[in-house]
Amino acid sequence: MRVGVLGGGQLARMLALAGHPLGISCTVLDPAADACAGPVGELLVAPYDDPDGLDRLAAASDVVTFEFESVPAASAERLARRVAVQPPPLALEVAQDRLSEKTLFAELGIETARFRAIGSQADLDDAAGELPAVLKTRRLGYDGKGQLVLREAAETRDAFAALGGVPQILEELVPFDREVSIVAARSAKGDIASYPLVENHHRDGILRITHAPAPRLEPELQDLAERYARLVMERLDYVGVLAVELFQVGERLLANELAPRVHNSGHWSIEGAETSQFENHMRAVCGLPLGSTELWAPCTMVNLIGGVPALADLAAIEDAHVHLYGKAPRPGRKVGHVTVTGGRSWKGVAELAESAGAAAP
Amino acid sequence: MRVGVLGGGQLARMLALAGHPLGISCTVLDPAADACAGPVGELLVAPYDDPDGLDRLAAASDVVTFEFESVPAASAERLARRVAVQPPPLALEVAQDRLSEKTLFAELGIETARFRAIGSQADLDDAAGELPAVLKTRRLGYDGKGQLVLREAAETRDAFAALGGVPQILEELVPFDREVSIVAARSAKGDIASYPLVENHHRDGILRITHAPAPRLEPELQDLAERYARLVMERLDYVGVLAVELFQVGERLLANELAPRVHNSGHWSIEGAETSQFENHMRAVCGLPLGSTELWAPCTMVNLIGGVPALADLAAIEDAHVHLYGKAPRPGRKVGHVTVTGGRSWKGVAELAESAGAAAP
Repeated sequence: MRVGVLGGGQLARMLALAGHPLGISCTVLDPAADACAGPVGELLVAPYDDPDGLDRLAAASDVVTFEFESVPAASAERLARRVAVQPPPLALEVAQDRLSEKTLFAELGIETARFRAIGSQADLDDAAGELPAVLKTRRLGYDGKGQLVLREAAETRDAFAALGGVPQILEELVPFDREVSIVAARSAKGDIASYPLVENHHRDGILRITHAPAPRLEPELQDLAERYARLVMERLDYVGVLAVELFQVGERLLANELAPRVHNSGHWSIEGAETSQFENHMRAVCGLPLGSTELWAPCTMVNLIGGVPALADLAAIEDAHVHLYGKAPRPGRKVGHVTVTGGRSWKGVAELAESAGAAAP
Repeated sequence: MRVGVLGGGQLARMLALAGHPLGISCTVLDPAADACAGPVGELLVAPYDDPDGLDRLAAASDVVTFEFESVPAASAERLARRVAVQPPPLALEVAQDRLSEKTLFAELGIETARFRAIGSQADLDDAAGELPAVLKTRRLGYDGKGQLVLREAAETRDAFAALGGVPQILEELVPFDREVSIVAARSAKGDIASYPLVENHHRDGILRITHAPAPRLEPELQDLAERYARLVMERLDYVGVLAVELFQVGERLLANELAPRVHNSGHWSIEGAETSQFENHMRAVCGLPLGSTELWAPCTMVNLIGGVPALADLAAIEDAHVHLYGKAPRPGRKVGHVTVTGGRSWKGVAELAESAGAAAP
């Protein structure tokens, strides 16, 4: 099988690495000639909206998938006219608009923070009684960008313009216990397999650490998260791996975001689960049965942000599994991750990661 | 780091796949333009004794290693004058001559079957009283080629010529309980880590199935095997992964062969151990600390010989981890392997492998 991937970053790189043992080769399309998936697959260098590039990707692939959700709608449509596309473009459409996403959750009976569409400063002025809240652009926000926390009415003034005057959504600021996420896969036949719910720690809007499974995970909470993922995947006739980011509030889970792709909070599955999220995504989009998502070992995943510690230092830490992406270090850029199995040595890794990130140019 | 590999087959392919997450890139030298490691690294197409090809490999590498032991001595020397070479060329020299290998074992006090050098038909006639025995060419034998089992004196007639009249070795045919092997790694600092002893099943001289660990493995037997590997590696100042193939006779282990490289009987370690033999070989030759060889799950590895079953059939088997090499099927050719964790489902895989192999053209 030949899988095309729109985007040639670390997610495409790890998909390609998971594909090789299955005899699945990847062609990735990326605007950057040094895209980090290049060395492990075929790289087509072209903008994501370049008709010729898209057509070459389609011609080189039996099925095309995505490593990011903000794919231009016209590109997804063009691909879908020429080649199988999984997950379905509808999933991209929903996930790239926070209002569609939240509306889908609401329609499916999936609990969320209260939200309302904001189309103008006047809409925002009307909502002054609903603070504290987070104002977000509906589209193209990620890693904490395109967001404003509004705690007092005075802060709403000019906030609509501060976010560029584009369509926005105002979401209630919920005092949550922790951030968690569920990663699940659905096969072309409709079988679903879910990984354990994990606990995520962000800073500056960027994921830093994931504990898998989430500590003190009750079966009821796992069931609830699996139900959310299943409802979304069945509604979208989804094929592939999907992540749902959630806030835990007591025994409740409020859905925050969808990621219609493999997800940073699932990287631990390379070592910690019988089958990784990357292999299961490849299996799903290629029409193969899913592999078991059974937990093999509790893990902590530490992202390497902005800089890479000395490889010898990382390799010397017991049970540390190093994943470097081959990307040039830049402040705030994800350049690798380390998964520590067994729960003992991750703090040492986190310290190394911090100092390397702080030393970034 | 940049690692050069002489040979671009499945071992180089799996080394390259293990290297990418560590930020280690591989350049492989192989005479075949379709060498199966090509898609996961840089491929230099040249004969193994081509000076220009060797020099290009050396120039592209911080360290050069090998996926097979029958490297021409002049090639190893040429590389070693230009770039670091690990394991040391001496290990290749020993391993590519069965007499040197057995002599080394004897010098180190490692038990073997009785053996004697055969340089002529007259030598063989002298040894007629030592049958049953196996006559082997000293060099370039593998997968059961270049061997004759001699049970009666009459069979020795013309046997020297039948094996090409090259230098040979006659080894006592020992009635053994089972074939086992140990894979171990030694770092540049001299640290050693060993995988559990495994049980191997051959047919027609080709490895078919490995059970890891070997069933009913007593700690004393593991200790003995680890001692053998350690003695060999320390004597050779070895850096990298090494395998010793052994016959078990009661509580004794008779050393049969060295493989100064990653080994087919260690493929299970990709899933079954904390760190795979491929990653540990890369760590060792790059001067990094070794990773833990701790067992994660008992495994059975089934080789795919001559043909590949339908991927969907393999993927449907619980706990089956598929590794295809991207090689064209040919009778007797290793084209992939499947590692089954947990010991339950391997027979189903073995049946699929048998029927695909039998269907080979």
